[in-house]
Amino acid sequence: MPVNLQLDEHGKLRHLLTLDGLDRSILKSILDTAETFIDVGHREIKKVPLLRGRTVVNLFFEASTRTRTTFELAAKRLSADVINLSPEKMSTSKGETVLDTVRNLEAMHTDMFVVRHHLSGTAHLIASHVPAHVRIINAGDGRHAHPTQALLDMFTIRQHKGNFQQLKVAIVGDILHSRVARSQILALNILGCPEVRVAGPRTLLPTHIERMGVRVFTDMVEALNDVDVVIMLRLQYERMQGQLIPSAQEYFSLYGLTPGKLTAARSDAIVMHPGPINRGLEIDSAVADGKQSVILAQVTNGIAVRMAIMAQLMGASAATGTAQ
Amino acid sequence: MPVNLQLDEHGKLRHLLTLDGLDRSILKSILDTAETFIDVGHREIKKVPLLRGRTVVNLFFEASTRTRTTFELAAKRLSADVINLSPEKMSTSKGETVLDTVRNLEAMHTDMFVVRHHLSGTAHLIASHVPAHVRIINAGDGRHAHPTQALLDMFTIRQHKGNFQQLKVAIVGDILHSRVARSQILALNILGCPEVRVAGPRTLLPTHIERMGVRVFTDMVEALNDVDVVIMLRLQYERMQGQLIPSAQEYFSLYGLTPGKLTAARSDAIVMHPGPINRGLEIDSAVADGKQSVILAQVTNGIAVRMAIMAQLMGASAATGTAQ
Amino acid sequence: MPVNLQLDEHGKLRHLLTLDGLDRSILKSILDTAETFIDVGHREIKKVPLLRGRTVVNLFFEASTRTRTTFELAAKRLSADVINLSPEKMSTSKGETVLDTVRNLEAMHTDMFVVRHHLSGTAHLIASHVPAHVRIINAGDGRHAHPTQALLDMFTIRQHKGNFQQLKVAIVGDILHSRVARSQILALNILGCPEVRVAGPRTLLPTHIERMGVRVFTDMVEALNDVDVVIMLRLQYERMQGQLIPSAQEYFSLYGLTPGKLTAARSDAIVMHPGPINRGLEIDSAVADGKQSVILAQVTNGIAVRMAIMAQLMGASAATGTAQ
Repeated sequence: MPVNLQLDEHGKLRHLLTLDGLDRSILKSILDTAETFIDVGHREIKKVPLLRGRTVVNLFFEASTRTRTTFELAAKRLSADVINLSPEKMSTSKGETVLDTVRNLEAMHTDMFVVRHHLSGTAHLIASHVPAHVRIINAGDGRHAHPTQALLDMFTIRQHKGNFQQLKVAIVGDILHSRVARSQILALNILGCPEVRVAGPRTLLPTHIERMGVRVFTDMVEALNDVDVVIMLRLQYERMQGQLIPSAQEYFSLYGLTPGKLTAARSDAIVMHPGPINRGLEIDSAVADGKQSVILAQVTNGIAVRMAIMAQLMGASAATGTAQ
Repeated sequence: MPVNLQLDEHGKLRHLLTLDGLDRSILKSILDTAETFIDVGHREIKKVPLLRGRTVVNLFFEASTRTRTTFELAAKRLSADVINLSPEKMSTSKGETVLDTVRNLEAMHTDMFVVRHHLSGTAHLIASHVPAHVRIINAGDGRHAHPTQALLDMFTIRQHKGNFQQLKVAIVGDILHSRVARSQILALNILGCPEVRVAGPRTLLPTHIERMGVRVFTDMVEALNDVDVVIMLRLQYERMQGQLIPSAQEYFSLYGLTPGKLTAARSDAIVMHPGPINRGLEIDSAVADGKQSVILAQVTNGIAVRMAIMAQLMGASAATGTAQ
Repeated sequence: MPVNLQLDEHGKLRHLLTLDGLDRSILKSILDTAETFIDVGHREIKKVPLLRGRTVVNLFFEASTRTRTTFELAAKRLSADVINLSPEKMSTSKGETVLDTVRNLEAMHTDMFVVRHHLSGTAHLIASHVPAHVRIINAGDGRHAHPTQALLDMFTIRQHKGNFQQLKVAIVGDILHSRVARSQILALNILGCPEVRVAGPRTLLPTHIERMGVRVFTDMVEALNDVDVVIMLRLQYERMQGQLIPSAQEYFSLYGLTPGKLTAARSDAIVMHPGPINRGLEIDSAVADGKQSVILAQVTNGIAVRMAIMAQLMGASAATGTAQ
């Protein structure tokens, strides 16, 4: 897919579709901008007027109330008007194409689309057809990418570890189906993390994953050895039962993060998870709620990071240079 | 359930979970505050800036568009941002617990949860786990409580009758399943109403209901004799057909409020109903639309009372003392 | 149906239920007001404060995310608070009547209802029961009327053709089931268009349609001969398969708008469609995306026209004379 699509002629970010092809300065700029929004969440009046009068459309062909809510909150705290649209309600069910749906919405002078779709590449497809002033954020497309999740994860890692230059990070679970893992690996590489490991059962590891610059493990304890960051992935257990994994009990015994397995990591390692967590499936409650867990910090940071991305994309437009 | 949970260390209301354990001054304070919001509904610009920049989450595990709309309107007229979340869309369907859902939402710096759930005690459960600055309003939990409905009913009674000191009030219908009735009885007791009666078929009267300080009737006309206020309850007929009541016709003939039965009450008695009404089942149209009916006044008052509760709860926080 | 219902005692528009009975000055006034709102869509801050603090209820008994979104955007750009309510979530499913639902909502001091319903006359029914200060906009009722769609179509025609005095307009497709066509014919007649043609298969032409002042064709190319405007209707193919039309292929071959058939019209003819379009069923992609198509302009204009209608209706109230 044409990654340059998301950059304008000056190399500024127009859309956020994938982290593939972005350089470190762009990622750092988003993380730095997000720092300035962290404070907004602590104020009594949690609003800034940056996107006042702009219209953000949450276009969720694949339902996800949690993710949609984070974008809705981020947009409202930037003072934008928000329209929530979801797949089963869209005219696409009447035979309209995705692009016709988008063309209609952009004809209403909407400014930004936050797109989630079960097919990889949908956000790219839309971005390649919208007029210059419209911005697209990929909120998850198939198995491909989930860049805002990866950026909030990077923000959380930097918040707790300072920088990426000395870090060992392990990502554990269903790597095969995870757009989150793909985006995290890209982000960690771009930000200079020297060692990224992935771990999971062989059936849930993509072939040639090592080409992404990661070390591959099937033994979880080996993978956690001496790491600074443990990222657990959500197991889509309901989709894969009896096929790719043997049983919930066996999965938990081999790949569930327990206090015991966690001792393999550094004593100051942080534990992350994109949520929602499956307690007792991929993570033990003692760990999820334990003092090394930063899972809820990820959620908090997610609002600030999404505000930063929205503000940057809108500011990247020549016509709206004053917005920031 | 620990009723003190809803009071802070100075005896101020932090959450509104139940009326049980609240004293008269707290209820009066809410009703008095609501008086000041009645006027807002008559203005051209029906908005006050009290909760500007705050985020109110309508967390309706049990669907109720009507009740949700009243809270949404109340919050918007206080200038809050509102997020509507409903059960079938929540991650709970992916195996997430109610508390994990709430913890995630509160990590997004949301300020107040309006919770409806079919299980008694859910609002208490949530309130006992949120951090100090988060406020919970119970919008109906199982058969347990519906305190905002009872408070708007009290507001409406006081509006028409001045005070509670000489009143006879009859509550008629399905007392057994009614969280509304339970909250009304508590409210009337706290506010000093000397005589509360309940009436219904024996199958729809809880055992030991008289311990709540009410007189119990199975004959509706006896129950209405000389009362100042008649409160009809909604019959969940679709749920109980052929089981707890014989037939709609027979129910109406025995417990439906007709102009004839209403003559047993005082000539200036008011007729109330929490809505939505079943015309010809628990109430005759001639009464519902008649001059003694204050059913639509209840709806109007509901907005002002919910604004008052929201404003008071937010003002009860030390950090936000200026909000009122 | 009593058309005067929508005019106040001074002949000003109180509700917009149908175009039947409205005179040219009222339609022109709406189109002229809409001109002033076109600019708002091009601003960075796409908001004007005309309806600040007012509550607009989108009451869509018949689901239509697209149309609902246009009203939601129009209301938000006028700074109104918007409540979206949809049929399956309404208390009507609990046996409440439409009028009781509306009475409850208006008791919450809502100012305007945008009503869509599958039964003709529902908006009239509601308008005939609301208090004087409440405004009703018909967003489509059964086969009867869809006046806001017709007005945005008129706006688009005037935008491209200047006026209606010399125009030939052809409306093609399922005239029988189309509330859009009925409203368009009325609008064109009121605005002085000298020749309105309708074309479609005999099974989709209402009997006596010529009494509305149109010329009737079953041959599409004859109907398009020398026209200035071609309005294609959406075929509700999923509803009528095998009954009223033989097959999609045959329909397209006879009544689908292709570049070939379009050559029968004037070379500067514009092509319109209310959307969503069925590519390859009633319209060829080459035409829908071609240079004569103004389909997306219709969508853009729809926001401005709906803003104009909302602002005019609210301004028509004596109490709110300053809103305009």
